Amino acid sequence: MTGESELTAAPPDAAQLPLHKIPLGVYDVIMSEPRTFVIIGGVAGGMSAATRLRRLDEHARIIVLERGEHVSFANCGLPYHVGGVIESRDALVLQTPQALAARFTLDVRVRTEAVAIDPTERSVRVRDLASGTEESIRYDALVLSPGAAPVRIPIPGVERGLVLRDLADMDAIIAAASTARRAVVAGAGFIGLELAENLRHRGLEVTVVEMLPQVLRPFDVEMAGLVAERIRDAGVELRLSTGLTAIEDGHVVVGDGETIPADLVVLSVGVRPESGLARDAGLELDERGYIVVDEHQRTSDPHIYAVGDAVVKQRFDGPASPVWLAGLANRHGRLAADAIAGTPHAAVPALGTAIIGLFGVTAATVGRTERELRDEGRDIRVIHTHPMDHAGYYPGATQLAIKLIIDAASDRILGAQAVGESGADKRIDVIATAMAGGLTASQLADLELAYAPQFASAKDPVNMLGYVADNLAAGERSVQWHELEALQADGWLLVDVRTEGENAAGAIPGSRLIPLDELREHAESLRGERVIVHCKVGQRGHTAARLLEQYGVTVANLDGGYLTWSAGVAATSPKGAA
Amino acid sequence: MTGESELTAAPPDAAQLPLHKIPLGVYDVIMSEPRTFVIIGGVAGGMSAATRLRRLDEHARIIVLERGEHVSFANCGLPYHVGGVIESRDALVLQTPQALAARFTLDVRVRTEAVAIDPTERSVRVRDLASGTEESIRYDALVLSPGAAPVRIPIPGVERGLVLRDLADMDAIIAAASTARRAVVAGAGFIGLELAENLRHRGLEVTVVEMLPQVLRPFDVEMAGLVAERIRDAGVELRLSTGLTAIEDGHVVVGDGETIPADLVVLSVGVRPESGLARDAGLELDERGYIVVDEHQRTSDPHIYAVGDAVVKQRFDGPASPVWLAGLANRHGRLAADAIAGTPHAAVPALGTAIIGLFGVTAATVGRTERELRDEGRDIRVIHTHPMDHAGYYPGATQLAIKLIIDAASDRILGAQAVGESGADKRIDVIATAMAGGLTASQLADLELAYAPQFASAKDPVNMLGYVADNLAAGERSVQWHELEALQADGWLLVDVRTEGENAAGAIPGSRLIPLDELREHAESLRGERVIVHCKVGQRGHTAARLLEQYGVTVANLDGGYLTWSAGVAATSPKGAA
Repeated sequence: MTGESELTAAPPDAAQLPLHKIPLGVYDVIMSEPRTFVIIGGVAGGMSAATRLRRLDEHARIIVLERGEHVSFANCGLPYHVGGVIESRDALVLQTPQALAARFTLDVRVRTEAVAIDPTERSVRVRDLASGTEESIRYDALVLSPGAAPVRIPIPGVERGLVLRDLADMDAIIAAASTARRAVVAGAGFIGLELAENLRHRGLEVTVVEMLPQVLRPFDVEMAGLVAERIRDAGVELRLSTGLTAIEDGHVVVGDGETIPADLVVLSVGVRPESGLARDAGLELDERGYIVVDEHQRTSDPHIYAVGDAVVKQRFDGPASPVWLAGLANRHGRLAADAIAGTPHAAVPALGTAIIGLFGVTAATVGRTERELRDEGRDIRVIHTHPMDHAGYYPGATQLAIKLIIDAASDRILGAQAVGESGADKRIDVIATAMAGGLTASQLADLELAYAPQFASAKDPVNMLGYVADNLAAGERSVQWHELEALQADGWLLVDVRTEGENAAGAIPGSRLIPLDELREHAESLRGERVIVHCKVGQRGHTAARLLEQYGVTVANLDGGYLTWSAGVAATSPKGAA
Repeated sequence: MTGESELTAAPPDAAQLPLHKIPLGVYDVIMSEPRTFVIIGGVAGGMSAATRLRRLDEHARIIVLERGEHVSFANCGLPYHVGGVIESRDALVLQTPQALAARFTLDVRVRTEAVAIDPTERSVRVRDLASGTEESIRYDALVLSPGAAPVRIPIPGVERGLVLRDLADMDAIIAAASTARRAVVAGAGFIGLELAENLRHRGLEVTVVEMLPQVLRPFDVEMAGLVAERIRDAGVELRLSTGLTAIEDGHVVVGDGETIPADLVVLSVGVRPESGLARDAGLELDERGYIVVDEHQRTSDPHIYAVGDAVVKQRFDGPASPVWLAGLANRHGRLAADAIAGTPHAAVPALGTAIIGLFGVTAATVGRTERELRDEGRDIRVIHTHPMDHAGYYPGATQLAIKLIIDAASDRILGAQAVGESGADKRIDVIATAMAGGLTASQLADLELAYAPQFASAKDPVNMLGYVADNLAAGERSVQWHELEALQADGWLLVDVRTEGENAAGAIPGSRLIPLDELREHAESLRGERVIVHCKVGQRGHTAARLLEQYGVTVANLDGGYLTWSAGVAATSPKGAA
């Protein structure tokens, strides 16, 4: 908001300032000629910067350089055209250079590569890839949006593997898939799994090979396990804790020497930032090679900005790190334009909200994982719930698994994860918003969320998390599924307060059955004992714990109940991890 | 959180304090006998208070008095059993006295009415409705959850009309509907419209009669109009700005004397609080008869608490007023229990978040309406958008209409409304959470919401609201659909920047067509003029406004474009309102 006044009230001596000290926005008043803005990379963040710049400066010369054939294509949609879910390839091409010229008078040059930046001269050396001719373009401000490229792991035959980054890659995968019967996807991240689903959707036999002991690293293992189960149920073979060691004709070789037949191999094992141009220009990079920027997306050179997947981001509750998300790229493109135009807005630390829909299940995540925080030795509280996505009495309700991770000292929300057939996206969006607003975990109880029986429950799943958080903050004890065995070994009794029928259908080893409605009769006999109570999801366990505590029992509730315990055990058993 | 320490650190002289000065929570330490808690009203808030009290006090005597036959039934589900959407009547009965006795040792007495409260004696006079016998019960704390009763308007034949409050009412409507062919529903609020949908679903001809010139009062007229359109498309006749004047055999009479055939008449024209008992006990009521409570749900008597539909609530940005929402009733029931047990939490001001699903469309709202705020003379900014609920290139995307209302001076969010086939609930929940967290409208741009193409867009509709808010806060001008005519009369030019085809399919009177991609050629000719630009939804209008402004044109963008203007005009035309 402050920028507009800066525009009209520039310090009189701005023209005398050394370049690196010129405050944001002062370009406007010290330049008399129309300015030239060059954007390198015409997808997501780059194009957001270009169109925003035009809206802010009608008279500037704005040049967008794109090495590929397309600008502004729907990269998040690529896997879905492979599977035929998105039928039209044209639907993925969101803009053309012609349309951008007509609407925004942008000079968009596809198949054009920036080969060098001269920061002192403020110029970019540009090569037309078709003709090979080169020219230099002088800029007043430069925006780098080079993105990140799929990593090609150094194994024999890697050249036989395909990757998925752009429309040409997608076309190659579709061409290969049209004759292939068996596919191997290396990497069980978001794109790898989306590809696996879509290849399966085309009718291929699909195996996913993943180095980690779980799918989807931004989730904790017991939550990722729920997704893994769906993937396996859909007939995709999932090989965890192993990697490709070679790609050969008709098959791949994995860690233990086993071969897996494959007519099509896709590598989706991570990305590396395309920051070579930035490095050569002397811009500051972090130790992983990502471009370092300030909160206005400005690099170590005051005239060069950078956005998107090649840029390191300030993170919520954690050190700066890359985040490869389209939403942030777009947002940061706009911020770069605002800063260049003299109306700077600061970026907020990235939460890393992400989502995947797969074989009918949705998994969404925000913030930090329990795994990361435990590794850092942080004092945290963790909550698992298994609520219905809407009132159970209204048709079509399905069960969610939700996890909330809380800073123990401050009750601040550090992260959340949700998996389910319906409503996971909504709950993670609400929690991400609560985090942005600085609400504590207990304050989630007070949120007034829209309720009618087909949409939610009178106590929404997010409210329920708040109630549980409030109880824990008030001193109630819970234990996690992965802590149970050690506590039992230490002498804690485990009491199952479910019904006989539930217990008979599956029980935790070493548990003693006392149904909740009979617990009062046994309460006196447990006085002085250390007891862990558990039910199916944690709610009856809470009632049981409150009851026993008032009879002098040292009591804790198994967080998330039998369902979370089962999910955790299944996801970490040799079978689940195999 | 502070309550736990109050429990253990009561002032030594608490027993000497006069009753009304005893601080919250001190009961615990000055009472030696198990306490008796009486709850009047066993649905929603009352039952939440009862079960929470049990978890907090295992040894208390907890008595729940319910005049009806059922406790804890799903009142929000009643309309859907009328329509057969919820097939099982039993599914609506969430708890039985027997189950509550077994689990929570609650003494639940149905068909039992509280006939008088003696606050001095701290006792309730109770009548068993079956036998007529009475007894007095002494209480340590009393919770009133009497609810609100449907208003029966004073017209001839009103006794022929049915209402819907409980299972018995529902049964009566179903019995009447099973032989009826034509129904009239008086009142186009949430319950009236849900009933209309479900009666239509049963195959009845349905007419809805509403005194106001719109349906759904918590929405502004142009948003409510989108719902009204759906209702009419579904074959329901909607009669606005008129009321029933009589119910006669086989028909009703409306305002102008016209008769409408009806074999079934349901009255859903509002409620009145059941606060007679509270009034007779001398408790403070507001001018409308609602029970006044503090932020711990305590009435003017220190031993009596009240929750639910009969209670006046502190409101977000506005005077205290009733809010009839199940979520708040449950939440406040818990707060009352917490306060009684000595662990008080304060209620937060009510936003009034509400939602309805109707004939395939969802309408959700939070906070205040433009209508209310304009009536109060408040300086506000209003934004309408029409985004797709998820990426347009992914199958199944549908268009939303979203409205955001902002305090002009502070950029604070005052309210929002959303209507659409999918995703309206999520966006209103996110905005309600942002309001609870104190985020400004512009800060919505920074929210990191979960994005994959089947769930949202890289710039989520909520982010887009933030971008627009940010532009307005930075000084961009917009005009509302209802301001357009006066501005045109005042000499502002209206320029349609859509395509020729769009313009030919429907244009605003007095507009001049200059498609956006040709606007630059005409920009100089408009220098010095006052111009309102418009497109279909407002986005191209924004680009056009930015462009023209830089050519020295005084320019404003028609907020929400042609779509919002059309919706507003249709909703306020004699035809729309008839």
